[in-house]
Amino acid sequence: MLSLFHTPGACSLASCIALEEIRETTDVEYEVKTVSFAKGDQHKPEYLTINPKGRVPALSTESGILTETPAILLYLAQRYPAANLAPLDDIFGLAQLQSFNSFLCSTVHVAHAHKFRGSRWANEQSSLDDMKAKVTENMTALFTQIEETYLKDSESEPWVMGANYTIGDAYLYTIACWLAGDGVDIAIFPRLNAHFNRMENRPAVQRAIAK
Amino acid sequence: MLSLFHTPGACSLASCIALEEIRETTDVEYEVKTVSFAKGDQHKPEYLTINPKGRVPALSTESGILTETPAILLYLAQRYPAANLAPLDDIFGLAQLQSFNSFLCSTVHVAHAHKFRGSRWANEQSSLDDMKAKVTENMTALFTQIEETYLKDSESEPWVMGANYTIGDAYLYTIACWLAGDGVDIAIFPRLNAHFNRMENRPAVQRAIAK
Repeated sequence: MLSLFHTPGACSLASCIALEEIRETTDVEYEVKTVSFAKGDQHKPEYLTINPKGRVPALSTESGILTETPAILLYLAQRYPAANLAPLDDIFGLAQLQSFNSFLCSTVHVAHAHKFRGSRWANEQSSLDDMKAKVTENMTALFTQIEETYLKDSESEPWVMGANYTIGDAYLYTIACWLAGDGVDIAIFPRLNAHFNRMENRPAVQRAIAK
Repeated sequence: MLSLFHTPGACSLASCIALEEIRETTDVEYEVKTVSFAKGDQHKPEYLTINPKGRVPALSTESGILTETPAILLYLAQRYPAANLAPLDDIFGLAQLQSFNSFLCSTVHVAHAHKFRGSRWANEQSSLDDMKAKVTENMTALFTQIEETYLKDSESEPWVMGANYTIGDAYLYTIACWLAGDGVDIAIFPRLNAHFNRMENRPAVQRAIAK
């Protein structure tokens, strides 16, 4: 059985959504194990044996443990091809999808992280305040790029990869959930807003959030 | 023909190394197009049509343009399987490799970027100085994790993925090249140091650096 180490509100929601999407077509058994950041679970020895980096998500499988959202999502898409969560037979399309997910993890998630995790990169309180004050501006700029470069204003292409729903949509939705807290009104992005509503209407997304 | 948009000293070296490794087994034609950060090429309209994010690398292919190192490396490994640069038939192994590359791009590269690119995340000079002062400590901690978690002290497993050389080695080497500038002496990491020397002895790496 798969075990997903997840923290409510964290990017591990994307992996949880993917698992719930897979359950629509495949008989996959998995459990969610909550890692409480409030209790500091991620720094405790028992969790560090799962993920020495002290972060979520981690996915425990029969073959071993996987970390990092883009890798877990790729693994799930490849392991359960019937769920059709990635263009597995299209080398260029799959790379485009990994490019989008890589951008989300290395640039968009990182921009957001400067709000509460500034102490990773600086020590002084004034620096942390300065970083925090820039988060709204940075997230607005990055989502403007997502709105204009990745999302289409077309009913036939409602998803990040166009006509087909993929793991990129689960990941985008997960990070878009943080916009309100980052001081960005999602309504200024009509395509993203429509994407967000489309996601919230999916039963798999509703089940993942309930977990 | 493939075109790689590259900046000397940037992470685009990893893609250049992969292309040179592929040339050992496959007749692949590619050209390197230099994007000069000193001249601000990355912000010029002609480059922004290639990569609206204003960064390197970008790989122009017959199917379109790809950005983000982990995605370009996966594309090259999948397109040229004879080069054997990734465990393509092992879903878990491929995800482990993508996990490593994702960690490099979203955590290790980002830690390094706070030295010269702090203005992405803060405005005050005092904050930028504070970030810069923490880079040595952060890069030391992250490479300690790489040394202990990913590299093995075994002649039969000289590479990130064990016995087989992969795109993860090209990417690790590229970022390890930054350690001296970040104030970290690579000699404190015996496994990494041996890996670095092993990489520098590869003809493909030597050709990539010469370009």
